Amino acid sequence: MSPKNLKAPRGTRDFYPDEYRQREWLFDCFRRVAHRFAFEEVDAPMLEDAELFIRKAGEEIVDQLYHFETHGHHLALRPEMTPSIARLVMARAEALRMPLRWFTITQNWRYERMQRGRKREHFQWNMDIWGEPGVAAEAELIGALFSAVDEMGLPRGTVRVRLNSRALLEESLRGGVLRDRPETFEPLCIVIDKLEKIGPEAVLEQLTSREAGIGLSEAAAEGVLAMLGAKHLDEAAAHVADDSEALADLRRLFELLDAYGVGDHVIFDASVVRGLAYYTGIVFEAFDAAGQLRSICGGGRYDRLSETLGGKAIPAVGFGFGDMVIAELLRDQKRMPEIPRRVDDFVFAFEDAQREKAIRLASRLRSGDRRVELAFEGGRLKRALADANRIGAQRIWMLGPDEADRGMVRVRDLSSGEEREEPLSE
Amino acid sequence: MSPKNLKAPRGTRDFYPDEYRQREWLFDCFRRVAHRFAFEEVDAPMLEDAELFIRKAGEEIVDQLYHFETHGHHLALRPEMTPSIARLVMARAEALRMPLRWFTITQNWRYERMQRGRKREHFQWNMDIWGEPGVAAEAELIGALFSAVDEMGLPRGTVRVRLNSRALLEESLRGGVLRDRPETFEPLCIVIDKLEKIGPEAVLEQLTSREAGIGLSEAAAEGVLAMLGAKHLDEAAAHVADDSEALADLRRLFELLDAYGVGDHVIFDASVVRGLAYYTGIVFEAFDAAGQLRSICGGGRYDRLSETLGGKAIPAVGFGFGDMVIAELLRDQKRMPEIPRRVDDFVFAFEDAQREKAIRLASRLRSGDRRVELAFEGGRLKRALADANRIGAQRIWMLGPDEADRGMVRVRDLSSGEEREEPLSE
Repeated sequence: MSPKNLKAPRGTRDFYPDEYRQREWLFDCFRRVAHRFAFEEVDAPMLEDAELFIRKAGEEIVDQLYHFETHGHHLALRPEMTPSIARLVMARAEALRMPLRWFTITQNWRYERMQRGRKREHFQWNMDIWGEPGVAAEAELIGALFSAVDEMGLPRGTVRVRLNSRALLEESLRGGVLRDRPETFEPLCIVIDKLEKIGPEAVLEQLTSREAGIGLSEAAAEGVLAMLGAKHLDEAAAHVADDSEALADLRRLFELLDAYGVGDHVIFDASVVRGLAYYTGIVFEAFDAAGQLRSICGGGRYDRLSETLGGKAIPAVGFGFGDMVIAELLRDQKRMPEIPRRVDDFVFAFEDAQREKAIRLASRLRSGDRRVELAFEGGRLKRALADANRIGAQRIWMLGPDEADRGMVRVRDLSSGEEREEPLSE
Repeated sequence: MSPKNLKAPRGTRDFYPDEYRQREWLFDCFRRVAHRFAFEEVDAPMLEDAELFIRKAGEEIVDQLYHFETHGHHLALRPEMTPSIARLVMARAEALRMPLRWFTITQNWRYERMQRGRKREHFQWNMDIWGEPGVAAEAELIGALFSAVDEMGLPRGTVRVRLNSRALLEESLRGGVLRDRPETFEPLCIVIDKLEKIGPEAVLEQLTSREAGIGLSEAAAEGVLAMLGAKHLDEAAAHVADDSEALADLRRLFELLDAYGVGDHVIFDASVVRGLAYYTGIVFEAFDAAGQLRSICGGGRYDRLSETLGGKAIPAVGFGFGDMVIAELLRDQKRMPEIPRRVDDFVFAFEDAQREKAIRLASRLRSGDRRVELAFEGGRLKRALADANRIGAQRIWMLGPDEADRGMVRVRDLSSGEEREEPLSE
């Protein structure tokens, strides 16, 4: 094996103890918030039938699928969790109590070029509500999202949510460009999602291209772009009917977000459509307020996904919150905590002859739920003390032949330096 | 998507909330014990270069590798954690403080025929000690193994460890069958490991077969089988020199296990060699005392793995403890707990007009770290009460128009049935 192979495969991460503790700190923030919102944790295999993920709208996430054939099966590493959640819900749709609130913290995979804040694997916190058609569900999710940001110690205002409604866009186009070919809506959204990345000219070109499967007239494409420029709900209102349901939903959602105390950090932005085909209604993304990083979290309503997968329609909404971009933000903001290792006791026998007594002592301390490192090597006390200090132990227990003969052990408090003898049997 | 695809891929598992809570209960037992023994948690990618896992001894685990080529890389889903741990240690061998104590709880994959207690994925708790050559490390690991069994509430005596030393077997063969061809030792162990499964005749046949790469004489093969029959250390002693190091190690290990209070549940068994090529010394497996199930846990010393992978030799010993067989034993023994969902409060608004107030109330309760389900639907109190009871909430908070107007909320304790009014602002 060559030295290069001592690295994790390109685009993947190892988690040494320090990094693992930071990862768990972040996951614990997610978990605490999810439990406060009465969400239940679930899990599904990382390897699924590839069919579960393959859709036809030219999504980046599908193009970048890790998939392979084995023993006659076409399998894929999940690129995202939502289809697996849909599968679990659909498989027990009759038995499950709706609305249901589920969360997952899973590793997802995509084969792609590496960029800052992006790897071939990442962990993602997903929160999903199934069975609730109203925007109260969206509000609850966005409330939870901000609670997680609070939980990490990030000041309010460092994270903002941009929010839109695909239903609003769809309504505005229904009378026009979508009248004859409603099936172009999904690929249209995928193209619009690239606006910031590729710019308006390239978007215009793709919207009018017949090859990309959309083929709008130039005037229609320019109309779409104009609609996307709306940065206030009132501006967007001009593009839809007065009794627009999508508009009413958006207005109600902002009222509810105020009740969660997060309305000031959520802005309407008609250009937000998200890059996944299955969204149908409200879509949103969280980003750092300074606009330096990729999006932290993305989500939306996907009321037709279960139908697409061959089941009956069940309203659903959810978000995915990755571990990579938020970690960058936490580091930029000096809010990523160093989580120290916790060891309570260090037990040291001077000679192999005291080893059995040291083991009995360590076992006794452990049965009191203390964290105990039992030194394997005897001999030099100086080294043992250095070791005990290095791992941050509170106390060192020292067992030499004299103490052992008298049934005693010396114990030193490593912060105060105080030392005393104790009977071994206690 | 056809209905069959609503199932997880064959041989894999979904974890719905009830199952997920049981899984976490088990993992928490592992974690608590690992922390008490001052082990640190680490993680590595599930997808590694296939090369990391491929060895040449005809191991089942390598034959059953999920592996594939993608974009010019030959990748594999890890079938076990030890090679990844070795990679992490070797990559930072100079910087890491030895001996190091690491644990992982990871999902591993093997493509194989399904049997009871065996799937294509399983989770495994691994505990590894690197940098300690003496049997104190083995004793610490076996001590931790039994602590985990205790932690799960299984009575002592339901789990036993069978233990042997490959070094002892190697010593006994050194003067004879291994003299000219020491490279046959690894495949020989792989064959011996199948003894219980395929029986002595088939083992004899494979040991004498030239094609399988071992090619012992019939007399030599029968000598090996005789050696494997030893069920006491004194019996095995007859096959090695009086000053055998391997024998001295075994005797010392049993003394240390007595100090851990587990010696009565560990038996010497010369037929235990384990089915992985890389073990070099002590090997052991835990099994249910009734002998009904597959092995619960397996481990051993693998002092040469880091060399095999191209690094310098570092002594190492570890075990892997799967989640499947122990779950069967826990169920058989009626010790698998049902872990109820925990929800503290259920907040219910009769009308949409009280929704904002309900949100503020829920937010207040949540900021006190309570677990709060906020009902999305108003209307029927009877249904809300049924829902609140069904999820096991302690209290229901009821917000109708009358209460809301007066700035009050009604709260009912769902176990006592007591009900009172409280100001909303508190």
